[in-house]
Amino acid sequence: MAAGSPRLKGFKQTVRLAEAFEKFLRETGLRRLPVEEVSLVDCLGRVLAVDVYAPRDIPPFDRAAMDGYALKAKNTFGASPSNPLVFRVIGKSDVASPFQGEVGGLEAVEVATGAPIPRGADAVVMFEFTQPLDGGKIEVYRTVSPGENVAKKGEDFKAGVKVLPRGRVLRSQDLAVLAALGFSQVKVKVKPRVAFFSVGRELVEPGTPLKPGEIYDVNRYFLASALTQMGCIPLDLGIIPDEASQIAAKAGEALEKADMLIVTGGSSAGRSDLTLEALKGLRGFQLVFHGVSIRPGRPLAAGALKGKPVVLLPGYPAAAMLGFLFFAKKILEHMLEVARPEPLKVQGKLVRRVASSPGILDFVRVKVKREAEGLLVEPLRTAGAGLTSSMAWADGLLLIPEEREGFDEGETVEVYLLRGSLVGEL
Amino acid sequence: MAAGSPRLKGFKQTVRLAEAFEKFLRETGLRRLPVEEVSLVDCLGRVLAVDVYAPRDIPPFDRAAMDGYALKAKNTFGASPSNPLVFRVIGKSDVASPFQGEVGGLEAVEVATGAPIPRGADAVVMFEFTQPLDGGKIEVYRTVSPGENVAKKGEDFKAGVKVLPRGRVLRSQDLAVLAALGFSQVKVKVKPRVAFFSVGRELVEPGTPLKPGEIYDVNRYFLASALTQMGCIPLDLGIIPDEASQIAAKAGEALEKADMLIVTGGSSAGRSDLTLEALKGLRGFQLVFHGVSIRPGRPLAAGALKGKPVVLLPGYPAAAMLGFLFFAKKILEHMLEVARPEPLKVQGKLVRRVASSPGILDFVRVKVKREAEGLLVEPLRTAGAGLTSSMAWADGLLLIPEEREGFDEGETVEVYLLRGSLVGEL
Repeated sequence: MAAGSPRLKGFKQTVRLAEAFEKFLRETGLRRLPVEEVSLVDCLGRVLAVDVYAPRDIPPFDRAAMDGYALKAKNTFGASPSNPLVFRVIGKSDVASPFQGEVGGLEAVEVATGAPIPRGADAVVMFEFTQPLDGGKIEVYRTVSPGENVAKKGEDFKAGVKVLPRGRVLRSQDLAVLAALGFSQVKVKVKPRVAFFSVGRELVEPGTPLKPGEIYDVNRYFLASALTQMGCIPLDLGIIPDEASQIAAKAGEALEKADMLIVTGGSSAGRSDLTLEALKGLRGFQLVFHGVSIRPGRPLAAGALKGKPVVLLPGYPAAAMLGFLFFAKKILEHMLEVARPEPLKVQGKLVRRVASSPGILDFVRVKVKREAEGLLVEPLRTAGAGLTSSMAWADGLLLIPEEREGFDEGETVEVYLLRGSLVGEL
Repeated sequence: MAAGSPRLKGFKQTVRLAEAFEKFLRETGLRRLPVEEVSLVDCLGRVLAVDVYAPRDIPPFDRAAMDGYALKAKNTFGASPSNPLVFRVIGKSDVASPFQGEVGGLEAVEVATGAPIPRGADAVVMFEFTQPLDGGKIEVYRTVSPGENVAKKGEDFKAGVKVLPRGRVLRSQDLAVLAALGFSQVKVKVKPRVAFFSVGRELVEPGTPLKPGEIYDVNRYFLASALTQMGCIPLDLGIIPDEASQIAAKAGEALEKADMLIVTGGSSAGRSDLTLEALKGLRGFQLVFHGVSIRPGRPLAAGALKGKPVVLLPGYPAAAMLGFLFFAKKILEHMLEVARPEPLKVQGKLVRRVASSPGILDFVRVKVKREAEGLLVEPLRTAGAGLTSSMAWADGLLLIPEEREGFDEGETVEVYLLRGSLVGEL
């Protein structure tokens, strides 16, 4: 064997993915991002920086939930079409001019939906179960129970209750909650500025004709959009040729203005140690690991420059996307202090055996089909770090843990779904 | 009973939700939105307007998938550490300067990852399984098979294959595909401009102190963010008091500049028929339905003004959100020609019986918990059209179809998940 050969450039040691992240946190002392206050309308997708408590009861008063008459429920007991009960209408309550008096035994106040329930009343009988009589009276044809058709004060939110936890990535329904409570400004984490560039003289921009040996750069387009979707500010620094000095200069410049740097390409163990070598030459660069036991994506490396995270993703698109989703994104979430529920996985039956090497965490891209008997999971392909198509055509990812040598046909497996956004799901 | 009474304002007839949508399409002849060409970097979340085919093979040539030596695989057969085979290195191929000659029997060309494989070679042996000798020769310690460590021309995309279907809401992984194929401009549907306002003199803006009888407007904040997330341009027209003339004027003005109008509030059968009455007074307004057999959300109404859709959502926030998600959003998707996969549902066991009236489609907001035995589904509340909290605190929605009077404790039910965006899911 060629052991000991100067040519032996393979990764002799790789760390496990979970360990890589722990090690990164431990060794770099990753900084958290500061907090800013922004207008409610700008909060979609932002990370809530504080626990939010209800400052008041919502609704702030008992409200009519229907149009009708507010009255004392107990005085309607026994009312029916054959036994109507008569009430005297003593006034009207609407949202602009709430009724100021108190409702007595056989009295009623006309209320519009949303209007405050007058003192003394505890239920609303809907118009359709009443009939007007002469002399400001009504007949009531139905028994209502206390609280019927009334939205109680504090029914939606009780003053003091925790309504949203810090770390929540704010969704449209969360903005609704903040509006309901009257917040016009919200404390959220500052958006991280994430710089990125691609390394490789073979890379050209889409839209340009290809010369022999050239391919289109994919990773910057993925990163720009994935970062935007995560609520980051993407700083696209373009394509850099495989020149150590240019890489080093660009990295230094990037971290002057960004909170994090992602470089794709130049992280394999071959020629393209180049990127890592270039970074190592920068004063203050601290390498945390190079090589992770995942497939695809083994050449993943990470470190810090002046305390700011630097992630080197493989140039191959599928490997870069997975390295972003399972590592770089975790760093960003740590900086943003995102408190995320367990990622969504669905269970399905594997239609074909997938193999994996022990000690390797495999990301298998799969199709998920709903059949009468449940979900079927069909592996698209287990290899192919470069296959952009595999990420876009997959419905999900099946992870084969380090302990396993694969999953058998017919086995029930759990799959992470790769789908659209939530408003997109219904 | 009060049948025949002028006060009887309840919904005598409601349509089913599915029918409401079909009726809407049939009677309004809803227009599709036009197509525009935009830059790739602006395509996240946009709706692809054409089927996209690969204009060329990707990769466009056989590429080295590893650093090493390109050679003829058959000439390595039998090579092992105890039986090294000797090859002559006749050159080097890298991405900037591909090797121009042809590789013969016991010849090899040094290749960097991504470099074109020279003619004559069909495999790459990695550096770590070789040893340099004097005189430009190497020893090879391992047998490689044809195609090993080679990314074949067209392996990712074959020229002419359909890579993305029209109607796809473009995700970051789809932009990666478009970049890989060299597209810098993409044909997408024009973003719909959606105007909206809230009706109700009790409504005030968050951040303002509440006077007696007032509550904060919730729906515009939900709509602005949900529309943004759907790739629409939201046009917020504010809060309008319950005045028919003002509502009519605002609606007319809205549809001068917008493709669709959503009004929240004033769609119940009570006082607030007002909104509908105001719209009916506008020349060219066509009412399609008023009242849908759903709970919450029964007062939902829809029509068209000069061919543009007008949706009246109930003022109660939970009802408004559900009406948006299950009706207004479907109209927008129709205009955008979105081709969406079946919405994601998960199966779980119901922990408590939920009841529903026959003939009503009930939206039950539920918590979903993962337990050892599978997912548990716990109803938050079956009523409460006004409960903003129920939408933000729910993990999902359980729909009780019109045919059912509920689901029993212990029954397996399907739940739509209400979660974050996709990049958010991993």
